[in-house]
Amino acid sequence: MELAAFQQLMASTYGENDRQRGVPATVAWLAEEVGELAQAVRKGTRAEQEHEFSDVMAWLASLANQIGIDLATVVERYAGGCPRCGTIPCHCPHGTDWT
Amino acid sequence: MELAAFQQLMASTYGENDRQRGVPATVAWLAEEVGELAQAVRKGTRAEQEHEFSDVMAWLASLANQIGIDLATVVERYAGGCPRCGTIPCHCPHGTDWT
Repeated sequence: MELAAFQQLMASTYGENDRQRGVPATVAWLAEEVGELAQAVRKGTRAEQEHEFSDVMAWLASLANQIGIDLATVVERYAGGCPRCGTIPCHCPHGTDWT
Repeated sequence: MELAAFQQLMASTYGENDRQRGVPATVAWLAEEVGELAQAVRKGTRAEQEHEFSDVMAWLASLANQIGIDLATVVERYAGGCPRCGTIPCHCPHGTDWT
Protein backbone atom coordinates (compact mmCIF):
# COMPACT_ATOMS: atom_id res chain seq x y z
CA MET A 1 0.00 0.00 0.00
CA GLU A 2 1.20 3.52 -0.69
CA LEU A 3 1.83 5.82 2.24
CA ALA A 4 -0.65 8.53 1.20
CA ALA A 5 -3.38 5.93 0.64
CA PHE A 6 -2.66 4.36 4.04
CA GLN A 7 -2.87 7.71 5.83
CA GLN A 8 -6.16 8.51 4.07
CA LEU A 9 -7.48 5.05 4.98
CA MET A 10 -6.62 5.69 8.63
CA ALA A 11 -8.53 9.00 8.45
CA SER A 12 -11.58 7.25 7.01
CA THR A 13 -11.38 4.40 9.50
CA TYR A 14 -10.40 6.19 12.71
CA GLY A 15 -10.81 9.93 12.06
CA GLU A 16 -13.91 10.32 14.23
CA ASN A 17 -12.39 8.22 17.02
CA ASP A 18 -9.19 10.28 16.73
CA ARG A 19 -11.09 13.55 17.13
CA GLN A 20 -12.99 12.27 20.16
CA ARG A 21 -9.83 10.92 21.81
CA GLY A 22 -7.68 14.00 21.22
CA VAL A 23 -3.97 14.45 20.60
CA PRO A 24 -2.51 13.71 24.07
CA ALA A 25 -4.27 10.34 24.27
CA THR A 26 -3.10 9.51 20.74
CA VAL A 27 0.49 10.22 21.79
CA ALA A 28 -0.06 7.91 24.77
CA TRP A 29 -1.37 5.15 22.50
CA LEU A 30 1.53 5.60 20.08
CA ALA A 31 3.98 5.25 22.97
CA GLU A 32 2.23 2.06 24.11
CA GLU A 33 2.41 0.58 20.61
CA VAL A 34 6.11 1.43 20.28
CA GLY A 35 6.63 -0.50 23.51
CA GLU A 36 4.74 -3.48 22.09
CA LEU A 37 6.88 -3.27 18.93
CA ALA A 38 10.07 -3.23 21.01
CA GLN A 39 8.93 -6.39 22.80
CA ALA A 40 7.91 -8.12 19.56
CA VAL A 41 11.28 -7.33 17.99
CA ARG A 42 13.06 -8.77 21.03
CA LYS A 43 11.11 -11.99 21.49
CA GLY A 44 8.00 -12.07 19.29
CA THR A 45 7.06 -14.26 16.36
CA ARG A 46 7.27 -12.96 12.83
CA ALA A 47 3.48 -12.52 12.80
CA GLU A 48 3.63 -10.51 16.05
CA GLN A 49 6.39 -8.31 14.64
CA GLU A 50 4.37 -7.64 11.47
CA HIS A 51 1.31 -6.87 13.62
CA GLU A 52 3.15 -4.37 15.82
CA PHE A 53 4.86 -2.60 12.92
CA SER A 54 1.43 -2.10 11.31
CA ASP A 55 -0.02 -0.82 14.59
CA VAL A 56 2.77 1.73 15.05
CA MET A 57 2.22 2.87 11.46
CA ALA A 58 -1.53 3.21 12.17
CA TRP A 59 -1.06 5.30 15.34
CA LEU A 60 1.59 7.44 13.66
CA ALA A 61 -0.86 8.10 10.81
CA SER A 62 -3.67 8.89 13.28
CA LEU A 63 -1.45 11.41 15.06
CA ALA A 64 -0.36 12.94 11.74
CA ASN A 65 -3.99 13.23 10.64
CA GLN A 66 -4.93 14.99 13.86
CA ILE A 67 -2.39 17.77 13.37
CA GLY A 68 -2.54 17.96 9.58
CA ILE A 69 0.82 16.39 8.68
CA ASP A 70 1.17 14.51 5.38
CA LEU A 71 3.58 11.61 5.96
CA ALA A 72 4.33 11.01 2.28
CA THR A 73 5.38 14.65 1.97
CA VAL A 74 7.50 14.94 5.12
CA VAL A 75 9.59 11.86 4.29
CA GLU A 76 10.76 13.71 1.17
CA ARG A 77 13.25 15.29 3.60
CA TYR A 78 15.23 12.07 3.07
CA ALA A 79 14.87 12.04 -0.73
CA GLY A 80 18.49 13.10 -1.27
CA GLY A 81 19.81 10.63 1.30
CA CYS A 82 21.01 11.60 4.76
CA PRO A 83 19.74 15.12 5.55
CA ARG A 84 22.96 15.87 7.43
CA CYS A 85 25.66 14.77 4.96
CA GLY A 86 23.49 14.71 1.84
CA THR A 87 24.85 11.43 0.52
CA ILE A 88 23.73 7.85 -0.16
CA PRO A 89 25.03 5.95 1.71
CA CYS A 90 25.34 8.26 4.70
CA HIS A 91 28.92 9.34 5.35
CA CYS A 92 28.40 11.29 8.55
CA PRO A 93 31.37 11.00 10.88
CA HIS A 94 30.44 8.97 13.93
CA GLY A 95 31.98 9.19 17.34
CA THR A 96 31.55 6.86 20.23
CA ASP A 97 27.77 7.23 20.29
CA TRP A 98 25.47 4.76 18.60
CA THR A 99 26.27 5.15 14.88
CA MET B 1 7.11 9.33 -1.70
CA GLU B 2 5.78 5.80 -1.67
CA LEU B 3 6.33 3.68 1.41
CA ALA B 4 8.25 0.89 -0.34
CA ALA B 5 10.53 3.42 -2.04
CA PHE B 6 11.15 5.18 1.28
CA GLN B 7 12.06 1.95 3.05
CA GLN B 8 14.45 1.01 0.22
CA LEU B 9 15.98 4.49 0.34
CA MET B 10 16.58 4.08 4.08
CA ALA B 11 18.31 0.75 3.39
CA SER B 12 20.56 2.38 0.79
CA THR B 13 21.30 5.38 3.00
CA TYR B 14 21.65 3.79 6.44
CA GLY B 15 21.82 0.00 5.89
CA GLU B 16 25.50 -0.30 6.74
CA ASN B 17 25.15 1.98 9.78
CA ASP B 18 22.11 -0.05 10.86
CA ARG B 19 24.05 -3.32 10.69
CA GLN B 20 26.94 -1.89 12.68
CA ARG B 21 24.63 -0.40 15.32
CA GLY B 22 22.46 -3.49 15.80
CA VAL B 23 18.80 -3.93 16.64
CA PRO B 24 18.77 -2.96 20.36
CA ALA B 25 20.43 0.40 19.68
CA THR B 26 18.00 1.03 16.82
CA VAL B 27 15.07 0.42 19.19
CA ALA B 28 16.69 2.90 21.60
CA TRP B 29 17.02 5.52 18.83
CA LEU B 30 13.41 4.94 17.74
CA ALA B 31 12.25 5.49 21.33
CA GLU B 32 14.26 8.73 21.51
CA GLU B 33 12.75 10.00 18.26
CA VAL B 34 9.21 9.16 19.43
CA GLY B 35 9.93 11.29 22.50
CA GLU B 36 11.10 14.16 20.29
CA LEU B 37 7.93 13.78 18.20
CA ALA B 38 5.78 13.91 21.34
CA GLN B 39 7.46 17.16 22.38
CA ALA B 40 7.16 18.69 18.88
CA VAL B 41 3.45 17.84 18.77
CA ARG B 42 2.94 19.48 22.16
CA LYS B 43 4.89 22.70 21.67
CA GLY B 44 6.91 22.61 18.45
CA THR B 45 6.65 24.61 15.26
CA ARG B 46 5.10 23.10 12.15
CA ALA B 47 8.62 22.63 10.72
CA GLU B 48 9.76 20.82 13.87
CA GLN B 49 6.69 18.57 13.76
CA GLU B 50 7.36 17.70 10.11
CA HIS B 51 11.02 17.01 10.96
CA GLU B 52 10.17 14.67 13.85
CA PHE B 53 7.50 12.74 11.92
CA SER B 54 10.07 12.11 9.17
CA ASP B 55 12.68 11.01 11.71
CA VAL B 56 10.30 8.53 13.34
CA MET B 57 9.46 7.16 9.90
CA ALA B 58 13.19 6.83 9.14
CA TRP B 59 14.00 4.94 12.36
CA LEU B 60 10.94 2.73 11.96
CA ALA B 61 12.12 1.88 8.42
CA SER B 62 15.66 1.19 9.69
CA LEU B 63 14.32 -1.19 12.32
CA ALA B 64 12.07 -2.89 9.76
CA ASN B 65 15.01 -3.29 7.38
CA GLN B 66 17.13 -4.88 10.08
CA ILE B 67 14.63 -7.64 10.78
CA GLY B 68 13.31 -8.05 7.24
CA ILE B 69 9.85 -6.52 7.59
CA ASP B 70 8.24 -4.82 4.57
CA LEU B 71 6.21 -1.88 5.87
CA ALA B 72 4.09 -1.47 2.71
CA THR B 73 3.05 -5.11 3.05
CA VAL B 74 2.30 -5.20 6.77
CA VAL B 75 0.01 -2.14 6.62
CA GLU B 76 -2.24 -4.17 4.28
CA ARG B 77 -3.59 -5.56 7.56
CA TYR B 78 -5.66 -2.37 7.66
CA ALA B 79 -6.78 -2.55 4.00
CA GLY B 80 -10.31 -3.60 4.95
CA GLY B 81 -10.58 -0.97 7.68
CA CYS B 82 -10.36 -1.71 11.39
CA PRO B 83 -8.84 -5.21 11.83
CA ARG B 84 -11.09 -5.81 14.85
CA CYS B 85 -14.55 -4.82 13.54
CA GLY B 86 -13.72 -4.98 9.81
CA THR B 87 -15.54 -1.75 8.93
CA ILE B 88 -14.79 1.77 7.65
CA PRO B 89 -15.31 3.78 9.78
CA CYS B 90 -14.42 1.66 12.79
CA HIS B 91 -17.48 0.65 14.81
CA CYS B 92 -15.75 -1.12 17.67
CA PRO B 93 -17.60 -0.66 20.94
CA HIS B 94 -15.62 1.55 23.26
CA GLY B 95 -15.76 1.58 27.01
CA THR B 96 -14.27 4.09 29.36
CA ASP B 97 -10.76 3.67 28.01
CA TRP B 98 -9.27 5.98 25.42
CA THR B 99 -11.42 5.36 22.35
